[in-house]
Amino acid sequence: MRAELVAVGSELLGPLRADTNTLWLTERLLDAGVEVAVRDTVGDDPELLESVLRAALGRADLVITTGGLGPTADDLTREAAAAALGRRLVRDPAIVESLRARFASFGRAMPSVNEKQGDLIEGAVALDNPRGTAPGQRIEHEGRVLVLLPGPPGEMKPLFATHVLPALEARGRAIRRRVLRIAAMPESQVDELVAPLYRSVENPRTTILGAPGQIELHLVGEGASPEEAEERIESLAVGLRERLPGRIFSEDGRELPAVVGELLVERDLTLAVAESCTGGLLSVRLTDVPGASRFLDRSFVTYSNQSKVDEIGVEPGLLERAGAVSEEVAAAMAAGVRRVAGTSLGIGITGIAGPDGGTDDKPVGLVYIALDSNSGTRVHRALFPGGRGRVRFQATQIALEILRRALLGLGPL
Amino acid sequence: MRAELVAVGSELLGPLRADTNTLWLTERLLDAGVEVAVRDTVGDDPELLESVLRAALGRADLVITTGGLGPTADDLTREAAAAALGRRLVRDPAIVESLRARFASFGRAMPSVNEKQGDLIEGAVALDNPRGTAPGQRIEHEGRVLVLLPGPPGEMKPLFATHVLPALEARGRAIRRRVLRIAAMPESQVDELVAPLYRSVENPRTTILGAPGQIELHLVGEGASPEEAEERIESLAVGLRERLPGRIFSEDGRELPAVVGELLVERDLTLAVAESCTGGLLSVRLTDVPGASRFLDRSFVTYSNQSKVDEIGVEPGLLERAGAVSEEVAAAMAAGVRRVAGTSLGIGITGIAGPDGGTDDKPVGLVYIALDSNSGTRVHRALFPGGRGRVRFQATQIALEILRRALLGLGPL
Repeated sequence: MRAELVAVGSELLGPLRADTNTLWLTERLLDAGVEVAVRDTVGDDPELLESVLRAALGRADLVITTGGLGPTADDLTREAAAAALGRRLVRDPAIVESLRARFASFGRAMPSVNEKQGDLIEGAVALDNPRGTAPGQRIEHEGRVLVLLPGPPGEMKPLFATHVLPALEARGRAIRRRVLRIAAMPESQVDELVAPLYRSVENPRTTILGAPGQIELHLVGEGASPEEAEERIESLAVGLRERLPGRIFSEDGRELPAVVGELLVERDLTLAVAESCTGGLLSVRLTDVPGASRFLDRSFVTYSNQSKVDEIGVEPGLLERAGAVSEEVAAAMAAGVRRVAGTSLGIGITGIAGPDGGTDDKPVGLVYIALDSNSGTRVHRALFPGGRGRVRFQATQIALEILRRALLGLGPL
Repeated sequence: MRAELVAVGSELLGPLRADTNTLWLTERLLDAGVEVAVRDTVGDDPELLESVLRAALGRADLVITTGGLGPTADDLTREAAAAALGRRLVRDPAIVESLRARFASFGRAMPSVNEKQGDLIEGAVALDNPRGTAPGQRIEHEGRVLVLLPGPPGEMKPLFATHVLPALEARGRAIRRRVLRIAAMPESQVDELVAPLYRSVENPRTTILGAPGQIELHLVGEGASPEEAEERIESLAVGLRERLPGRIFSEDGRELPAVVGELLVERDLTLAVAESCTGGLLSVRLTDVPGASRFLDRSFVTYSNQSKVDEIGVEPGLLERAGAVSEEVAAAMAAGVRRVAGTSLGIGITGIAGPDGGTDDKPVGLVYIALDSNSGTRVHRALFPGGRGRVRFQATQIALEILRRALLGLGPL
């Protein structure tokens, strides 16, 4: 079975924004045993798009488009697909009604331009899109299948998972995937430890993927049944865990903040955070986790020196003596925020995110991260490469990993 | 003039490796005034590739392929291109000779597989490739131009710069681009206001792009000189500004936090923030701006009710009476954080980000955003669609837009 993917949108043909939807779809299709033969990106030009779709439908068993289902005059995928198939567009009053109800639920009248989102290609099945206005469409035509998906990834992905993937998986070989995540280790170090093992195994296939502050091992196992595919994965995972003791923080899709949040809730512990250079990013990442109020009580962004004194009781003399970016001030921030908030744990982060403010002694990228608890205060010193955004993100990643290790009794980083 | 780019290679259709050659080419072509209408990625399948090339040559004035010019059995671009044009391949003995000399210069005999790199499409000009073995090819056919470039970026880029770009630049059209950004308005509303204007103008071309909490109008102007292209853009921008009075926050690439930060610095004003449902995201976005310490003094994530009382002096009775998510508490947070921090302005945000915690009365997505200043307290009520992440982001976007409007004396949202 061969698929062709068509990303629609002139904005994807500018220099600044590449399509990521078809990469994501390629990965999922390969997992389901479907080869992607061609990927196209097409601007908002109905004739071009019709020509591309007609060619794709002549070559592939499955054609998936993303984008161009919005309400504006630029959104022309419905029209172009209908023309490529030689079918009419028919407005579905039930879809228009549900769009109107969606707008009403936000207290707004539906603009008339949105009505065309109720246009279905004759013979197509509408794919319900609870997260957006544009429904997807699926149509069989001369033995080929054409699927139209919306462009926003948050809408496209669930539609694919709900309406496209199950039909593909029903075809036979079971594929399972697992992602092992590791924080606060360089990719080369992880690879040195595990490459000899995973390279010797053909099923599952393993790919190592690096991101700032995080390494992922992607395992794709295949079997006659889902259970067999899972067994293949598990037998390799056992060996990987042995080679990375205590380092794999997640095998079930959770990111580090969710893992740490659950550990806190399980142990009935609360946390307060005082951030300087990270500007609140650790708090944001922790409160991205639904139900974060069970473990996060409050946070302070103590950006100025005075705010460190006023809000969390850092001594003015200490700030003068050691400097705002120092082991001592990080420790005082962690202890201070814990005392003020009355929580089980306190974290303090202070550093130089750049691009300015670095010195020979305290360069850009230098960050101190402190954890204060009943068993005392621990300070970690880190020097991160990269720009302001990367330094800030990595600092929060290390803080979370320090927390995770402390909660599991694994000892310092 | 319209171009189509074709990246060749099955390795580009795996999940983990995207083609970057065509992104690079897109940017260079746009700068030279050539619009890229379609980008394709095709595996090493000669029939597929022939079909894609034939379709591309039917649509575009300029078709550029990258990859598939190597010596192995997988390298089939020459063959597929010849078939798409209905021309023969002719082995050029001079090219084969120079390949042999290249190998000899490294002290090696040329493997016989490399001989096919001397195959030229009948009528094509060979493009000398001093950094690799595969020469490029350029051929004119029925008013269209087809260019075959090698895949390795280190070979592709110099070949493009030497053999393709000069001919394009000689056409003498200059291209300039500008992005107009608007916050806190739905895409359909922006489009209704400005589509009649920008659709009536062919130069610049305008594309509307929606993102959560932000709409962008991308204007691409063309002229005999850069100045003329800029003039074209400016003459349309004047009309767009009239139809969106006070709504365009940036025309120079800056995002909303940077715009607000500069307004604060220019006016010598300081800000403190108290956040509940956004968990610190407004503070993070503001401190993403280098030099944020000039306007942001401190922020509080007052997640629990008690922290609202302790840190920013919200009355316990008010929390009980009105509830934590209420106009009154938002106002008290803004006024309280301003008082505690001693800043010119205070912002308070409280709401229900979801997925849980909503009621009929106060549904998920309900957020109150308050701004407190010398001229009093203003509270904005918003109801955002989407998941937790989108609700939180949009709340910060509205807060920034409220700030921007207040700083410019534009009146409430």
